[in-house]
Amino acid sequence: DAPFALISGPCQLESLEHALMMAERIRDAAEAARTPWIFKASYDKANRSSLEGKRGLGMEKGLEILAEVKARFGCPILTDVHEPGHCARAAEVADLLQIPAFLCRQTDLLLAAGETGAAINVKKGQFLAPWDMANVAAKIASTGNERIMLCERGTSFGYNMLVSDLRSLPIMAETGYPVVFDATHSVQLPGGQGTSSGGQRQFVPPLARAALAVGCAALFIETHEDPDNAPSDGPNMVPVSELPALLARLRAVDDLIKS
Amino acid sequence: DAPFALISGPCQLESLEHALMMAERIRDAAEAARTPWIFKASYDKANRSSLEGKRGLGMEKGLEILAEVKARFGCPILTDVHEPGHCARAAEVADLLQIPAFLCRQTDLLLAAGETGAAINVKKGQFLAPWDMANVAAKIASTGNERIMLCERGTSFGYNMLVSDLRSLPIMAETGYPVVFDATHSVQLPGGQGTSSGGQRQFVPPLARAALAVGCAALFIETHEDPDNAPSDGPNMVPVSELPALLARLRAVDDLIKS
Amino acid sequence: DAPFALISGPCQLESLEHALMMAERIRDAAEAARTPWIFKASYDKANRSSLEGKRGLGMEKGLEILAEVKARFGCPILTDVHEPGHCARAAEVADLLQIPAFLCRQTDLLLAAGETGAAINVKKGQFLAPWDMANVAAKIASTGNERIMLCERGTSFGYNMLVSDLRSLPIMAETGYPVVFDATHSVQLPGGQGTSSGGQRQFVPPLARAALAVGCAALFIETHEDPDNAPSDGPNMVPVSELPALLARLRAVDDLIKS
Amino acid sequence: DAPFALISGPCQLESLEHALMMAERIRDAAEAARTPWIFKASYDKANRSSLEGKRGLGMEKGLEILAEVKARFGCPILTDVHEPGHCARAAEVADLLQIPAFLCRQTDLLLAAGETGAAINVKKGQFLAPWDMANVAAKIASTGNERIMLCERGTSFGYNMLVSDLRSLPIMAETGYPVVFDATHSVQLPGGQGTSSGGQRQFVPPLARAALAVGCAALFIETHEDPDNAPSDGPNMVPVSELPALLARLRAVDDLIKS
Repeated sequence: DAPFALISGPCQLESLEHALMMAERIRDAAEAARTPWIFKASYDKANRSSLEGKRGLGMEKGLEILAEVKARFGCPILTDVHEPGHCARAAEVADLLQIPAFLCRQTDLLLAAGETGAAINVKKGQFLAPWDMANVAAKIASTGNERIMLCERGTSFGYNMLVSDLRSLPIMAETGYPVVFDATHSVQLPGGQGTSSGGQRQFVPPLARAALAVGCAALFIETHEDPDNAPSDGPNMVPVSELPALLARLRAVDDLIKS
Repeated sequence: DAPFALISGPCQLESLEHALMMAERIRDAAEAARTPWIFKASYDKANRSSLEGKRGLGMEKGLEILAEVKARFGCPILTDVHEPGHCARAAEVADLLQIPAFLCRQTDLLLAAGETGAAINVKKGQFLAPWDMANVAAKIASTGNERIMLCERGTSFGYNMLVSDLRSLPIMAETGYPVVFDATHSVQLPGGQGTSSGGQRQFVPPLARAALAVGCAALFIETHEDPDNAPSDGPNMVPVSELPALLARLRAVDDLIKS
Repeated sequence: DAPFALISGPCQLESLEHALMMAERIRDAAEAARTPWIFKASYDKANRSSLEGKRGLGMEKGLEILAEVKARFGCPILTDVHEPGHCARAAEVADLLQIPAFLCRQTDLLLAAGETGAAINVKKGQFLAPWDMANVAAKIASTGNERIMLCERGTSFGYNMLVSDLRSLPIMAETGYPVVFDATHSVQLPGGQGTSSGGQRQFVPPLARAALAVGCAALFIETHEDPDNAPSDGPNMVPVSELPALLARLRAVDDLIKS
Repeated sequence: DAPFALISGPCQLESLEHALMMAERIRDAAEAARTPWIFKASYDKANRSSLEGKRGLGMEKGLEILAEVKARFGCPILTDVHEPGHCARAAEVADLLQIPAFLCRQTDLLLAAGETGAAINVKKGQFLAPWDMANVAAKIASTGNERIMLCERGTSFGYNMLVSDLRSLPIMAETGYPVVFDATHSVQLPGGQGTSSGGQRQFVPPLARAALAVGCAALFIETHEDPDNAPSDGPNMVPVSELPALLARLRAVDDLIKS
């Protein structure tokens, strides 16, 4: 029952300066709360609601920045991959590869990610039951890579809304793999703003506390210094200025539950 | 931010002896955990899945037993009402009247309950959004009775399953009324066993912890000394032998969150 | 494979004159389409979204009007009942008693309705699976009354929305009882307008055609000469001026499917 | 209001002989019902529930077979693509490229498919609202390719079940693009059999009739001579021996609705 780890970052890479600034603020908050942390950012947003959504800096530029963050802060790096052919290159920099929820059933991507030997964080598709993730994990494990994490990020609930079924945490934990709760995307309102997704930032802290009270190995919380002007996921990101207080409280819940 | 109250009992009244035994065990557990408690039992199960489900002892016999529990233990009593004409009589014994979820939109029942002056715990219909409960509360408040509690007990999620959307707790709290989380019926599998409802007892403790971590005023947890042979709700009731340890843990979560 | 019957009326009784006018227009449309018809109206709307919603004329005044419609047009009358004690009186006038969806699990109401000997149209709760209606029907049948109809009126789908799962028609038909599709309430947006329910009138014709294409015994379509100013269900009622063309088209689909 | 087109085939390519046999039987049924038809088969099943599910013959072998079917029967060919890099090669043989539902938000795949100039059938994700498909279509249309079809294939409804919301057909038709109803995958029970998906073959005919009664441009119905032993989608495929009678009936509904 190790303390929970924090996976955090600005969702989408903006620039080297921005990534370093964010990493520093996340590190400070995490260290103050004695919380292991992993820096997360995407170099490409491959599945935006509409074509107008910003895509990102591209793979090579993005990996350069992530490598620099890793060099400066010594933190593990998580980034997401969208095609089998990108996995090996991404894993040269990233310690953890993330499989996006929409892609969690794409066999070739799961196998390619697994073969890199990196740790793999698979988001549970919004269309999947928690018990169906055992099959997803088995695809990765077939490569000999058992460094698998299963991540709850909300389940389709009518149109343009997700619901967080916290039963999924103990159900997915039955696989034996660590379970992550993504408090950021769980409060997304998919497609809820016409050409982009809305979100309910105010529910990140209570749902993150709830997930720790149920029990989980890691929390995924995206953050930004100015979420309302972030290139993606703004409506559901926590302002980085609120991260220290949030983490302190989450640390206390986790300590209590795991005591 | 008062500590959470426990609403607990054996779901359905079986006999005076049984009610007294259950009340004693609940009291002992609640006192050990410094938790205010309310004894809950139904004298009639008016909406069983099928006709074979046991209905209960009837109103007069049931109220006699509840009055005796109240006299012996000095605890507040909660029971549920199903027809406007029953409210006044039930309120002679019960301190809190409960409106069943299926009936939470029945205006006459809400008004009759409100007019008794008793505290009213309204279960949110499985078919309602949390923000729709403001209209339900307003019906009761129109009688001049503001002693209202709003209770989450799960939301329809496909067929034969409910989901606990914990966002509903802060959303309903915006009304200003105390919010209750019913950890027992939230893990019901309605109709899941042919002629009765199934349940997932194993999720009562984690969801109860989660509700307190989000923040709520009371927990509703039915219990029985032999749930597998209880006349109703057995699959989702917690064995009373497990109540002391459960309450101790819940008390710690609540204390932390409200500190 | 008898032709489908039409259950239609203005939802809520407004006055004798209004009821007679509506009945005449419905009769004309039904006769032109060679369609058996049943006049439906409620004397009380017992479960409005909010207290501001108009309740209706009351039982005695309402039944008088329904009796007059029956006398003038010779049509069967359907009205809904909300308490066990009202069933016998309502059945003195009504040929068919309707159990509202929220109340479809209330045993006493089902038994009291069944005992009148009237035909009973039970709406499937928004929270029920179609196969769960067998238990509901069995409660009524236990009174010796087998004149039962099972009615699809939409299923909870996230918040403030229903979905019409047309598989429910053949599934409920396995009970052997005739199945009704309520095209009016299936397109309700419950609670979707703050203190009242919204609706999607434009989907009544396509869903009614779809239900007949799947196969059903009756359609329930509320209508009004001025839906936007009707006291209830306006957003999902079809203007009575459109009923003749709609019925003609529905008749053709039904004839084809049952040929 | 052209008559509906039939998209049909054995889901997964098994061999040249099998493909030719199936094409012949589908052609015979379609011609008897005066129905334009498109042969559909997959050379790769990239998102099986588990690793044990058969993947298919591979791209080159599969495209060879599809080319042969096209040469012999002169029918248009539809196949699905899973990676941007495969689109151009697939479009050398296929007249229509299909975007799988899980991948309907992957921008690079939509653009690569659009750029081939082939017609594109995009399945609506089980996690998407029908109105969200306008953004999906706009991504394809940005390539200058307006030969777009939008396909309903069921929406997530709780766990391990889909529901067909037929309102989606007119809603998606507001884009101006032809709308397809996939009667095969709409009756899938995803993950419902442990390591494969279950299905409800019995609902294919009623839902296909319902979709035509609502109005749509094409039906997608997979078929097999021995569905129970087919390598994929067996539980929801119609036996090819039943196709002629089914098509005749569907033709009649479509003719009536479009008359």
